[in-house]
Amino acid sequence: MPDAMNAVPDSALAATLLAALHAQSFDGVGINRDSYGAGEQRAHELLCEHALRLGLEVQTDAALNLYITLPGRSRTLPRVMTGSHLDSVPRGGNFDGAAGVVAGIATLSGWRQAGYQPLRDVTVMAIRAEESAWFPFSYIGSKAAFGKLPAAALQVRRADSGQTLQHHLQELGGSPQRLAAGEAWLEPQAIDCFIELHIEQGPVLVEAAVPLGIVTGICGSLRYRHARILGRYAHSGATPRNYRQDAVVAGAELVVALQRLWQQLEQLGHQLTVTVGQFHTDPKQADFSTVAGQVDFSIDMRSQSPATLALLDQQLQCAIAEIAVRQGVQILLGEQTGSDAGVICPPLAEQLRQSAAALGHSSLDLPSGAGHDAALFAGAGVATAMLFVRNANGSHNPDEAMAAQDFDAATEVLAQVLRQRAER
Amino acid sequence: MPDAMNAVPDSALAATLLAALHAQSFDGVGINRDSYGAGEQRAHELLCEHALRLGLEVQTDAALNLYITLPGRSRTLPRVMTGSHLDSVPRGGNFDGAAGVVAGIATLSGWRQAGYQPLRDVTVMAIRAEESAWFPFSYIGSKAAFGKLPAAALQVRRADSGQTLQHHLQELGGSPQRLAAGEAWLEPQAIDCFIELHIEQGPVLVEAAVPLGIVTGICGSLRYRHARILGRYAHSGATPRNYRQDAVVAGAELVVALQRLWQQLEQLGHQLTVTVGQFHTDPKQADFSTVAGQVDFSIDMRSQSPATLALLDQQLQCAIAEIAVRQGVQILLGEQTGSDAGVICPPLAEQLRQSAAALGHSSLDLPSGAGHDAALFAGAGVATAMLFVRNANGSHNPDEAMAAQDFDAATEVLAQVLRQRAER
Repeated sequence: MPDAMNAVPDSALAATLLAALHAQSFDGVGINRDSYGAGEQRAHELLCEHALRLGLEVQTDAALNLYITLPGRSRTLPRVMTGSHLDSVPRGGNFDGAAGVVAGIATLSGWRQAGYQPLRDVTVMAIRAEESAWFPFSYIGSKAAFGKLPAAALQVRRADSGQTLQHHLQELGGSPQRLAAGEAWLEPQAIDCFIELHIEQGPVLVEAAVPLGIVTGICGSLRYRHARILGRYAHSGATPRNYRQDAVVAGAELVVALQRLWQQLEQLGHQLTVTVGQFHTDPKQADFSTVAGQVDFSIDMRSQSPATLALLDQQLQCAIAEIAVRQGVQILLGEQTGSDAGVICPPLAEQLRQSAAALGHSSLDLPSGAGHDAALFAGAGVATAMLFVRNANGSHNPDEAMAAQDFDAATEVLAQVLRQRAER
Repeated sequence: MPDAMNAVPDSALAATLLAALHAQSFDGVGINRDSYGAGEQRAHELLCEHALRLGLEVQTDAALNLYITLPGRSRTLPRVMTGSHLDSVPRGGNFDGAAGVVAGIATLSGWRQAGYQPLRDVTVMAIRAEESAWFPFSYIGSKAAFGKLPAAALQVRRADSGQTLQHHLQELGGSPQRLAAGEAWLEPQAIDCFIELHIEQGPVLVEAAVPLGIVTGICGSLRYRHARILGRYAHSGATPRNYRQDAVVAGAELVVALQRLWQQLEQLGHQLTVTVGQFHTDPKQADFSTVAGQVDFSIDMRSQSPATLALLDQQLQCAIAEIAVRQGVQILLGEQTGSDAGVICPPLAEQLRQSAAALGHSSLDLPSGAGHDAALFAGAGVATAMLFVRNANGSHNPDEAMAAQDFDAATEVLAQVLRQRAER
């Protein structure tokens, strides 16, 4: 007999869905759920089918984001939302994104089975195209849902197919026209809150031996993706130290200087990451017996605090000026790109923290260095929080490793807070 | 009427030959005298033709090195030798190598015109295949002349044609069989001395405003051409500093450490150069938003002193061990290659120094950081010296810039010392 008070998430369904997602998108090496392609589409169809089987309401918007709703006793109060994305990077892992959608469905399924109907509508959103690996454009799905996708994004081409977003979207039955017109499916004032459950993509929870992470903020970024150092090619044996304009030495000094700045800012209490992920001499001209005349490199700086990024950027400029003069090279940072930080709603994060404690699951606070769709909700003014699940081996690779037990603990916390929000 | 006492180098012939070499090997961008190819062959034919016109003896060995000899009054005393190579790198400059051969011919032409016949034979050698840009093997011509070319070298393939050295050599009428048998054309005990005139390939003489350089030693080298750092790829935003195994940071620290070691050794009086000419993250895996898991790089260390190279190598190992532990990466230096230093004969260098002073040309002492055929003569036990000519813009590029006046000054010094040696 259903007991609405003791509704628990349907962990069996969650396991079934995660296994089915793996089976349908594993190519022998990794998971392929290509944004607006066959892989992502199959995942959406799988979730849709199960939602209908559970008697839930199913809708899609012009961008083909999927909304699975358990209707509330009131249909007019702002709805409670959860969810994440279903796409993966090429040969990625099974949990990055999908875990958040599956946790939402498992919650609604458990409530259905227990006969629990919330006061407010509770909606699980399966978001399209979060990974920018396919289309070089970030957060296509969630931007579109808020009517914030620039029309130009429809002309962006997918890395593998060479076809435009418009083409792929149309092929699946979406409506580029409505997106181009700026149609918004989601209205911030009609949303009570958005909570995204996601695997941690770094090693913090694993190293701390804690299953859950309460996200304190989603880092913004400041990037120089195409920076270049111009020195002067010269004979390695015939050019004394004082006559060199060595791009590799200048670049190395810059990398070391950035590490020092990072460390100093951390010691002053700032939260940030600094990464030079690409650094290469020119394969056509560099030679082991030639002083390098050119280096191309990238800088990726992230922080929850825009002030920290601005400070670091200023210090970077100083370091560059000093190194350029001393080494006799030009350092060109190139175009600056970046994204805004996502502000987490402290009372909502506190609810997750207290719920975890009440349910006997340890948690720790940490920033999200990676970007997430949740940042779009936060940016739109929706009360937003994120719950991280312990995961080994990082993400964006087939070795993602999230224990079912940790996922179940996180889903339990998510369900409890969704219910608290849905009843208030 | 000829005046043997006042014989001066034939600078008009030198200018003619350098212009003709340029005309026949310039492709609109740079000079192409491909080793054992059409460009080098044309240069050899040009020099041979002029030598015959001057009534000089002309011979070639199994490797097609060209020997142009002014017979001495005695044909049995050890001969005096000069010369250099005629090949260039692809789209290189006109002077690297050729200047030394042309200076020798201009000397013999001047002597001929003045009716001067030396006591000893004086031979100008036009050496084959000094540049390893075409065949990835160093000093093919001079090694072959001394019977020191390993048979395996005949199977090395030319970078552009894909054909073996044996093939190219045969096509031009050389004898791979005799080379494979280790036939030596040159016998060290039959050579009084070898003096190589060559453009400076670095900026030292230009910066010092001095036309001539007296080489104090030819640097040996110690190289790690295929070194690699293995770290761990990780999400740039989600991976805190203490959890990173960043190959770029480790590599940058190593480059900075090598610069510091270089500076310290220089302050202690050591002569050396240290170059990381290649440094690159993996183009297939590196991403601006990923901590780099791999870096490939090269190290080229050069010094006149084997002890300095051994000391630096030891310090390098210490630096690597320290960085590897601190950054949690593996640093694999890979195969060590290198070449022996060429020892300059101090009395012969002193003759060049005094001759320059006597003729009113300023000179300074400097090491040769680049390798030269002269090192092979030195290694065979021949009294060897090198005379550098001021040259702007380095070498191995079309912008080599040697003033005719500096060349003439150097040739004058060369001719005087050759004559001193030929008469003793």
